[in-house]
Amino acid sequence: MAMLSNLDNFFYPQSVAVVGATEDPSKSGHQILRNLLDFNFSGEIYPVNPKRENILGLKAYKDLTSIPHSVELVVITIPSDEVPKVMRQAADRGDVRAAVIIASGFAETKIPERVLLQQETVTIAKEAGIRIIGPNCVGVINTANGLNTTFAANIKRIPGNISFLSQSGAMGASILAFSQGQPIPMGFNKWAHVGNQADVNVLEVLKYYAQDKGTKVIAMYIEGIENGREFLKVVKEIIPEKSVVILKVGRSEVGSSAAASHTGSIVGSDQVYSAAFDQVGIIRVETLEDLLDTTKALAMQPLPKGNRIAVLTEAGGPGIAAVDELGLHSYIEMPDFTQITKERLKAILPPMALVDHARGYVDMSAAAMEHHHAEALQIILDDVNVDGVILVTVLPGFLNPQILAEKLLATLKEKPDKPVVMCILAGDWVQEACSLLEENSIPTFMTPERAARSIARLVQRTIYLNRANDTDTIQPTSITCTEHAIISKALAEKRHLLEPEAIKLITTYGLPTVPSAFTKTTEEAKHAASSIGYPVVLKVVSPDILHKTDAGAVRLNICNDKELEQAYNEILANSKRYNSQARIEGILVCKQATPGIETIIGGKVDPQFGPVIMFGLGGIFVEIFKDVVFRVAPITLNEARTMIKSIKGYPLLVGARGKMSVSIEALAGAIVKVSQLMLDNPEIQEVDLNPVNAYEQSIIVLDARIILDVA
Amino acid sequence: MAMLSNLDNFFYPQSVAVVGATEDPSKSGHQILRNLLDFNFSGEIYPVNPKRENILGLKAYKDLTSIPHSVELVVITIPSDEVPKVMRQAADRGDVRAAVIIASGFAETKIPERVLLQQETVTIAKEAGIRIIGPNCVGVINTANGLNTTFAANIKRIPGNISFLSQSGAMGASILAFSQGQPIPMGFNKWAHVGNQADVNVLEVLKYYAQDKGTKVIAMYIEGIENGREFLKVVKEIIPEKSVVILKVGRSEVGSSAAASHTGSIVGSDQVYSAAFDQVGIIRVETLEDLLDTTKALAMQPLPKGNRIAVLTEAGGPGIAAVDELGLHSYIEMPDFTQITKERLKAILPPMALVDHARGYVDMSAAAMEHHHAEALQIILDDVNVDGVILVTVLPGFLNPQILAEKLLATLKEKPDKPVVMCILAGDWVQEACSLLEENSIPTFMTPERAARSIARLVQRTIYLNRANDTDTIQPTSITCTEHAIISKALAEKRHLLEPEAIKLITTYGLPTVPSAFTKTTEEAKHAASSIGYPVVLKVVSPDILHKTDAGAVRLNICNDKELEQAYNEILANSKRYNSQARIEGILVCKQATPGIETIIGGKVDPQFGPVIMFGLGGIFVEIFKDVVFRVAPITLNEARTMIKSIKGYPLLVGARGKMSVSIEALAGAIVKVSQLMLDNPEIQEVDLNPVNAYEQSIIVLDARIILDVA
Repeated sequence: MAMLSNLDNFFYPQSVAVVGATEDPSKSGHQILRNLLDFNFSGEIYPVNPKRENILGLKAYKDLTSIPHSVELVVITIPSDEVPKVMRQAADRGDVRAAVIIASGFAETKIPERVLLQQETVTIAKEAGIRIIGPNCVGVINTANGLNTTFAANIKRIPGNISFLSQSGAMGASILAFSQGQPIPMGFNKWAHVGNQADVNVLEVLKYYAQDKGTKVIAMYIEGIENGREFLKVVKEIIPEKSVVILKVGRSEVGSSAAASHTGSIVGSDQVYSAAFDQVGIIRVETLEDLLDTTKALAMQPLPKGNRIAVLTEAGGPGIAAVDELGLHSYIEMPDFTQITKERLKAILPPMALVDHARGYVDMSAAAMEHHHAEALQIILDDVNVDGVILVTVLPGFLNPQILAEKLLATLKEKPDKPVVMCILAGDWVQEACSLLEENSIPTFMTPERAARSIARLVQRTIYLNRANDTDTIQPTSITCTEHAIISKALAEKRHLLEPEAIKLITTYGLPTVPSAFTKTTEEAKHAASSIGYPVVLKVVSPDILHKTDAGAVRLNICNDKELEQAYNEILANSKRYNSQARIEGILVCKQATPGIETIIGGKVDPQFGPVIMFGLGGIFVEIFKDVVFRVAPITLNEARTMIKSIKGYPLLVGARGKMSVSIEALAGAIVKVSQLMLDNPEIQEVDLNPVNAYEQSIIVLDARIILDVA
Repeated sequence: MAMLSNLDNFFYPQSVAVVGATEDPSKSGHQILRNLLDFNFSGEIYPVNPKRENILGLKAYKDLTSIPHSVELVVITIPSDEVPKVMRQAADRGDVRAAVIIASGFAETKIPERVLLQQETVTIAKEAGIRIIGPNCVGVINTANGLNTTFAANIKRIPGNISFLSQSGAMGASILAFSQGQPIPMGFNKWAHVGNQADVNVLEVLKYYAQDKGTKVIAMYIEGIENGREFLKVVKEIIPEKSVVILKVGRSEVGSSAAASHTGSIVGSDQVYSAAFDQVGIIRVETLEDLLDTTKALAMQPLPKGNRIAVLTEAGGPGIAAVDELGLHSYIEMPDFTQITKERLKAILPPMALVDHARGYVDMSAAAMEHHHAEALQIILDDVNVDGVILVTVLPGFLNPQILAEKLLATLKEKPDKPVVMCILAGDWVQEACSLLEENSIPTFMTPERAARSIARLVQRTIYLNRANDTDTIQPTSITCTEHAIISKALAEKRHLLEPEAIKLITTYGLPTVPSAFTKTTEEAKHAASSIGYPVVLKVVSPDILHKTDAGAVRLNICNDKELEQAYNEILANSKRYNSQARIEGILVCKQATPGIETIIGGKVDPQFGPVIMFGLGGIFVEIFKDVVFRVAPITLNEARTMIKSIKGYPLLVGARGKMSVSIEALAGAIVKVSQLMLDNPEIQEVDLNPVNAYEQSIIVLDARIILDVA
C-alpha cells in the first residue's frame, strides 16, 4: 500500500464497524453486513447493534465505544438524528480514520436543521481527523480486499481493472449488476458513490483512482461537476495513463432540468461540458449501454494505432450494419486492403466470398467454415493498412460456435496488438463461445452496431492520445494590463464597461478595432468624424443600454455632417424612449468598416469550467443554426485553429461560393487574445465581440461588450 | 384460410417435400428437416434423397416423381446445377404449387451462365404455374402451422403478432434468435427471406402480410427497394391497421456502399428514403436493437393518445437518463401533472420523494416500497395530462422484484389504455420479475434509455396516425400541358430544355417568372431591355452550357444600353472560352428582380421513389449547411407547408433578425406546382428552380433548369 492519499483509510481499512447492522433483511444495515461477508472482506468486521449479541454469525457490540479492538473505518446506517452521537463516539475512540455515512436526511433535503445536522457531523469528524464519505451515499467497494460498504444486492466480488465513480448510487449499482450479466462478468477494481460530498468529493476520489495502480479505466456517471477547472486539470494528467469514460446526462433540455432537480446538481451548459470533455480527452458516452460497452472494450483490448477499422463477416446484413455504424463516426476510415491481402483472402475463402466489393469489408459468404473465419482474421490483421477488426458472425446451424471461438483464439494468441471486437448473433447457443472469447479478452457485443461503436471509441482514445503529442502547447503569456484601472473604476461604480472602455481594454490585448472617438456633443462628433473620415457609425454610450441595436441607438453608414447631426439626435431620442432612466454618457463615433465576413468571438465565465471561449459566424449562423464552438480557456493557437475549422460554416471562411477567403490566422490570434483577456481579468464575466469582421489578411472588431461581475 | 393471395401455398401448404434432405448435420438439408419436425409442422413432410430410405425417422423418396402423395410445396437445397431438373419433376407432377429454392449459385453471382440457370428454372416453374421464393434464400416460417423452411439453428416455434420480412437471411435469423432471448421470448407470426426475388419479391410478401389477420406489426430489414413508389402505396394502405417498422442500412456513406455490394441492392439516397418512410408513416429504426425494442413495444402495448410521457422511478440517476433520452425526441413532451396528482403522490410517497421538481418526473426515493410503485403508477395513469408512463427501477436488496411485478400488474389489470414500459435494473435476480411482466404484456428493457426510446416510438406512430386524418388530402389536379411540344422537340433533338423553354413550361403551371425575352443580337436585346425596363440580367442560352454562372455567362444588374452591349459580348466570349463547341442559341434578357429571400425548389426522378421534390434556402444554406427537405410527389398544400416549416432556416422565412417575413403560402403553392409538373411529364428528369425569390406577398422564379431523360 504505497499510495499517498488518505482515502486508503476508506478503501484499505484493516477493520470495519457497521453501525446499524441488523438481522432484519429489509434494512440496509443487514445487506451491508451481508455484502462484507459475501465479499470475504480481508479485515475485521464489527457489527454495532445495541439489541443483539450476534448478527449473521458475527459478535455484535452495543456501541462503537465497546469494541475492544482497533476500528479504522466506520459505516453508519442509522437514522440521521443519531449520526452526530455516533460520530462523537468514533472521535472519542481515537483510532477511527474514516466514516462512510449511508444515512440520508441531511443537507440533500435542503431543510435548515438537517443542513445543520450535516455540518455538526462534519465538524466532529474534522476535529478528530476522521474523513467522511457521504452522507446519503452507498459508499465504496474494493475488490482487492473484499470491502463492500454498499447495500446493493446480488453483486459479486469480481476483480478487474475498471474503477467506477458515480453521482448516483442507483446508477452505480446498475452498472455493477449490468456488468456482471456479460458473457464473462466484467471485473471492477474500485467503486464509489460519494453522496452529499460533505467531505470527500468526486474530485478527490478521481485523484485517488488516478494514482491507483490497479485501475486502467475510470468510468463515471455524472450529473454536474462543482469545480470544473480543477476536474479538467486532474483528468488531463490522468489521460495519458488511463482512459476516462463519462456518462453525463443533459443531452436534452428536459434531461438537464431533471438532473438539476436531483440532489441539486449544478448542471450548466451541456455544450460546454462536451467541449471541455473533448478538450482533455474524456470519452463522453451517450447511454448506460454505451458506458458499459466502451468500458469493456477499453478494459480488454489494446488501442488501435490508427483509425482504419475492417469488418469481417459471413453474414451480409449484420456485417453491413456494422459498417453503417462505423460510418457515423467521422474519424473512422474503412481500410484499403493491400493487393496481397485481397489475393490471400480470395485464395482461402469460398468462391462466393465478397472480398473487395466495399472498402475494408469482407463477406466470407454463408459457406465459410470455422477455419475460414480464423484464417481470414489472421490475413486482415497482417495487413499494414488495418488498425483494428470487427468480426460479425451469424453461425449457420452446421457451424460450431465453440470450435469457431477456439480457432479464433488460436489465431489471436500471437497478440497482434491491434484491437479485435466481436458480435456473435444470437441466442443462448452462442453464449458459451462468447464466454470463451471474453475469458481471453476478446470482447463480444450483442449487436453489430454495438461492436462497431465500441471499437470506434477505442479509436477516439487513440486520437486523443495522439493529439496530446501536439507540439504547439505554448500557452499565450499573461499581459500586464495597463488599462486595468478601467475595470476598477467600473467595478467601483457597480457597472459594466462602456464601449469606449471595452475598446481600450481589448486594444491593450492587441485586438484590432476600428478608429473611434467618444463624443459628448454633435460638434465633437462632427469633428471626430472628419478626423476619422466618413462614412462613420454612431452608437450610444450608456451603462444602462446594453443592447444598443434593440434601443435604436446605433446608426450605420453616416456619410456627412448633416446625416451625422440627425443621427446623433435620433439616437439620443431613441435611447431616452427605450429607457427613460438611462444615463447617457455620450456617443461613440466609429469608422464604418468595409464589409467582411462577420464572425463572433465571445467569452464567458462558466459556473463549472470558468472562462470559456466561443467562436462562430455572425448573425443568423449563431442565432438560427447555432453553428458555434466552445473551448475552455486557456487556448493555444493550434487549438484556436481547430475551433475555427470545426464549425459547419468553415467553408465560408475559406472562400466557398466565390466569397473571399479570410485570414484564419488572424481569427485564431484573436481567439487566443480573448482567452488571455478573460484569464488575466477574473472580474470580467462576459466578453462579446460581435461582429468581428474577417478579411483576407486581417480582422477587425466592430463592437465590443464587456460585462463585469458587479453583483 | 380465407386469404386471397396465392402466397398461401408458401405459408399454408398441406404437404412439403424437402429435396436435398440428409442425415448429415453439417448440411442445410438436414437442418431444414429438423426445423420442420421441431416446429411440429401440421402437414405432411416428404424428404427426398436418392440414397436413403429414412431420414430423421421419416420415409425418404428417391425423387419428387416417386412421392405417391400430393405435394404442395417443394423446398430445394441441392447444388444449383441440378435445380432445373428438380423443377421439371415438380412441374411434371402437376400438384406442386410453390417452391422455396434455398440453393445459391444463381443470378446473385452475376456470372452469365448462372443468371441463365435462374431464368431457366423460373421459366419451367412459370409454365407449370409454380410460384418461386428464392433462389439464394432461407425461405419462410409460419408459426401457425409450424412451417419452417429455414436452416436457421435453435429457433423455437413461438406464435405472436409480429411478422418479419428481411433482405438478409442472416439478419432475419438474428432477429429471431435475439427476440427469443428476451425475458419472454417474443412471438412471430410469419417470417420471410426472399433472396434473389426471381419470382416472389419483397413487395408481394408485404402485400400478403398486409392482409394477414394474425399480423399486427410488420418488421423489416432492408438494404434497398426496387419499386419505391408501389412500396409506399402499399405501406400507406397498411399503416392505419398495422405498424410498419423498418431497419434500413445506409445511415452513413460507407454503409450505403457496403449495402450496394451485397447482392447488388439498389441503394439510392438515404435522405430520400427517410423522407419517404416518414411520409407514409413507417417507423424507421436505427439499429438491430432499436428494431427489436420498437417491435416489442408495438406488439405489447396500446398506443398513447398523445405525446405526454411521464417518468416514474425510485432511482435518481437511471430515472434522469430516461428523461434525458425522451428529450432527444422533439415530438415528446413531459406532462404537466394536475394539482390533484401531485397531492395524491405526496400523500402516499415517502417524505424524501421528489414529486414536482422536474416536469412529468417523479423520484419516489430509495425508501419506496413495492406498494409505493404500484400506487404511484396508478395515480400517474389516472392523470388526464399523461399519455404514457416509463417506470424505471433499481431495486434495493430489501425489495422483492416478484412482489413488485405482481403489485404493478394488479394495478395494470384494469388496462388503462395508456402504454406503460419498464426498465428493471439489473442482473439475473430481476429476470423472473421481467418475465412475469412481459407475460402480462408489459415490455421490459435492459436500460432506461431503451425503455424511453421505445415509448417514444409508440408516440411516433400515434403522430403518424393523427396526421393521416389530415383533411387536406386534396391532390393537385393534373394540368393539360399546352406547352408539351417544347418537351417533344427537345427530346427529338436529344437535348435538355433551353431556359426560355423551361420558363414557358413552368409558366403553364402557374409558376411566376420574371419578364424575359430571348434575343439573338445586341439590337434585339436592347429593344427587349427597354420594353422590360432596366435594370436587366443577361444569360447565355445554349444546350451545351448548363452551369451558366461557372461559364461566366450571366451578367446581373445591367442598367443601360451601353452596359448591355458590353455584357452581351462578354457573355458570348466567355461562353466560347468555356466550351468552344457550344452551340449558342442567343441571350436571354430578364428583368432584374428586387432582392428577396433566396430559396430553391427542385425536383428529380429518384431511382427508387420516382419524382421527389426538394425545398431549401438558397446559396450557402443548401450547399454548406445542407438545410433541405425532400418529399416524394405528389404533394398536397399542407404537406408543402410542413416541408417549409421543417427546415432549420425556417425562422429566416418568418422574419427572424429583422428580415422580411415571406409568403409561406406562395412557396407552398410553388412546391405543389413543381410536384405536379414532374408527375405530368415523366420525360422530365430534374427541375432546378434556383433561386426562387420569396417576398412578403409573392414569390418569383429567377432561374429555371429542366433536365430531360435524353439518354
